[in-house]
Amino acid sequence: MMTDNFTKNIDKYLEYDENLRLRIKIEKLENLIEATGLIASTFKLDKLLDMVMEIGMEMMNAEGCSILLLDEEGEKLQFVAVSGKKKDDLKNMTIKPGEGIAGWVVKNGESLLIKDVSSDDRFSNRVDRKLKQTTKSIICVPLEIKGKIIGAAEVINRKDGRPFDEESLSLFRSLAIQSAVAIERSRLYADLNDLFFSTIKTLASAIDAKDHYTQGHSERVSEYSIEIGKTLNLDENELTKLELSAMLHDIGKIGIPEKILTKKTFLDDKERKEIQKHPGIGARMLVPIKQFGEIISCIRHHHERYGGGGYPDGIKGEAIPFFSRIIAVADTFDAMTSNRPYRKAFSSKQAVGEIKKFSGIQFDPKCVKSFLKASAKGKIKNNVHVPRRSAPAAQ
Amino acid sequence: MMTDNFTKNIDKYLEYDENLRLRIKIEKLENLIEATGLIASTFKLDKLLDMVMEIGMEMMNAEGCSILLLDEEGEKLQFVAVSGKKKDDLKNMTIKPGEGIAGWVVKNGESLLIKDVSSDDRFSNRVDRKLKQTTKSIICVPLEIKGKIIGAAEVINRKDGRPFDEESLSLFRSLAIQSAVAIERSRLYADLNDLFFSTIKTLASAIDAKDHYTQGHSERVSEYSIEIGKTLNLDENELTKLELSAMLHDIGKIGIPEKILTKKTFLDDKERKEIQKHPGIGARMLVPIKQFGEIISCIRHHHERYGGGGYPDGIKGEAIPFFSRIIAVADTFDAMTSNRPYRKAFSSKQAVGEIKKFSGIQFDPKCVKSFLKASAKGKIKNNVHVPRRSAPAAQ
Repeated sequence: MMTDNFTKNIDKYLEYDENLRLRIKIEKLENLIEATGLIASTFKLDKLLDMVMEIGMEMMNAEGCSILLLDEEGEKLQFVAVSGKKKDDLKNMTIKPGEGIAGWVVKNGESLLIKDVSSDDRFSNRVDRKLKQTTKSIICVPLEIKGKIIGAAEVINRKDGRPFDEESLSLFRSLAIQSAVAIERSRLYADLNDLFFSTIKTLASAIDAKDHYTQGHSERVSEYSIEIGKTLNLDENELTKLELSAMLHDIGKIGIPEKILTKKTFLDDKERKEIQKHPGIGARMLVPIKQFGEIISCIRHHHERYGGGGYPDGIKGEAIPFFSRIIAVADTFDAMTSNRPYRKAFSSKQAVGEIKKFSGIQFDPKCVKSFLKASAKGKIKNNVHVPRRSAPAAQ
Repeated sequence: MMTDNFTKNIDKYLEYDENLRLRIKIEKLENLIEATGLIASTFKLDKLLDMVMEIGMEMMNAEGCSILLLDEEGEKLQFVAVSGKKKDDLKNMTIKPGEGIAGWVVKNGESLLIKDVSSDDRFSNRVDRKLKQTTKSIICVPLEIKGKIIGAAEVINRKDGRPFDEESLSLFRSLAIQSAVAIERSRLYADLNDLFFSTIKTLASAIDAKDHYTQGHSERVSEYSIEIGKTLNLDENELTKLELSAMLHDIGKIGIPEKILTKKTFLDDKERKEIQKHPGIGARMLVPIKQFGEIISCIRHHHERYGGGGYPDGIKGEAIPFFSRIIAVADTFDAMTSNRPYRKAFSSKQAVGEIKKFSGIQFDPKCVKSFLKASAKGKIKNNVHVPRRSAPAAQ
């Protein structure tokens, strides 16, 4: 009878343990679901990768986590995030598909749970040396989108010293599925953003190129404006709007007769009035693009003067959109430091002097101050013919 | 003693039930995680909403599911998905924040679990009549992004006749969190896509407008090309590429001297050679935009002739990119049905006759056939001055 009772109790205790195990699993799944919402909520790849690492390490109670992505050719696996390492340290950290644990996982498209790497031939010391770590136990899972492997994620060494188990593997695999989707979404968005900016740049450049004296003008004005904007501590969002406004500030020139745009001598009054229509034409052109919003008035007002007397509306001071005031400085600096048919380019020093002289008259003193700061730091360079830049990283 | 034993057994049975309950919960959470991956994997809002509804109904074992989104002004809640209803039926289905259960949830930003709506004052029969349903039990949760309510999701009536419980509410809330994130991502992507297309259209129109005889040309060529493409059963992805190629086919005209572009009399040989540079200029301009890929050669070759003898490369037949062959038909049709300084526009019938005549000589017979089909269906209309269209829905 006693034995019988004892068995009964053991059963009951196991039952209790089993429930505890289930409860812990439920908690982990609920955490994973919450984490998934976080991961999906950003399009910024860097931020996303950092989140995945943080969540992965906490959820797996792991000492380290890293994420690798395949390049377009599928020939190199790049470490894009490694716990404890900064992004800049990762630049040369690549391995080949097939090399080490992660390479094996990517090549074979299968997850690996290795309780002790010292007894596994696939393990490569080279990766450990690269990452300055000592792997004991590891889980590595492929990152996969619609059957295509795009990389791998791995965690190493449980903090409690025990090896990873099947349950950890299943949980980490779930995280990897969600992460792969988010990475792919982030890349698609970045790609479209990049396409949009490249297109804007290309078309603005084509308009500048109608007159070889203004070749590269919009791109330079955009670069100078961004430097001023950074000095003014504008955030990423504002810098993007500023960049678009600057890139498109002269887009209205497409509506100005070519013979006036490219005239080699001074313009007469009638011609000057004609060319002064370009900010208004540009703004009107872009009105149907609802997302441009305030960018449109920034374009309209880039030839207003801080002290009044500019065009098209003759508004002054703070009534002029802030980005227009920034662009006015950048635009004038680029015009002065570029050759014109009727005069040679000013030196950078001369042009800076002129901008200073007209602070408060033509230009907003705040913008001039930031321009001077950026210029003193060597951020604003009058390379008359800059090569075409590639599109900026997606915001 | 007997009472004692009995109590012990009850405990044990409850323990068993608890265990079952936990296992069921784990299964549901695992399903939710899988569902989340699916939801996040599309940017297409319609597809995404359908998925959320399907998953919601299955997960909740519910008779019905609906999703409402707030309009930009926050004044109307639009039913954007209702189980058993087609998208077209939902157009006029709106309620106000505050109205009915969903209106209450959106207004207060709180979830509701109502086991029996007949005893709840917030319940509105009007919504039931609108949706042709009889609600007994309901769960309604807000869709929320970073503290901002964007809408609500609701499920009604458990299929087993029992009312919903707290556990169902918690699960549905998790689904709603993931769905809200996915909806927001989808909208951001659509918005950027829309911005990109609007910008392309605006700039292409501006170039067409340099010569008032070609005003609206690129947009019409794009519309005609898409109709031909649809008749050829191109998929969404291909139609997007075709639209971009058609919209940008004349972009190289930006590099052609205005006096040649707008000349009112016949062009001499030298001028004709000059203007024939535009496909090459356009293609070269766009080379830096890596995402354009094959679109670039479609632009380069839109003036080639199927039988040879076109420009710039004189290639023929299938060597000409397929989209260029489509655009060639659309482009010629629009040119013929538009006025020119030296001739009046052809009638649509005359122009169709000409296109037919040159099938196999100037045009790909497949494209001509599809053009004729689309034209016979009234899909290709020579409205010489079409008003500016809004951007197409995001792909």
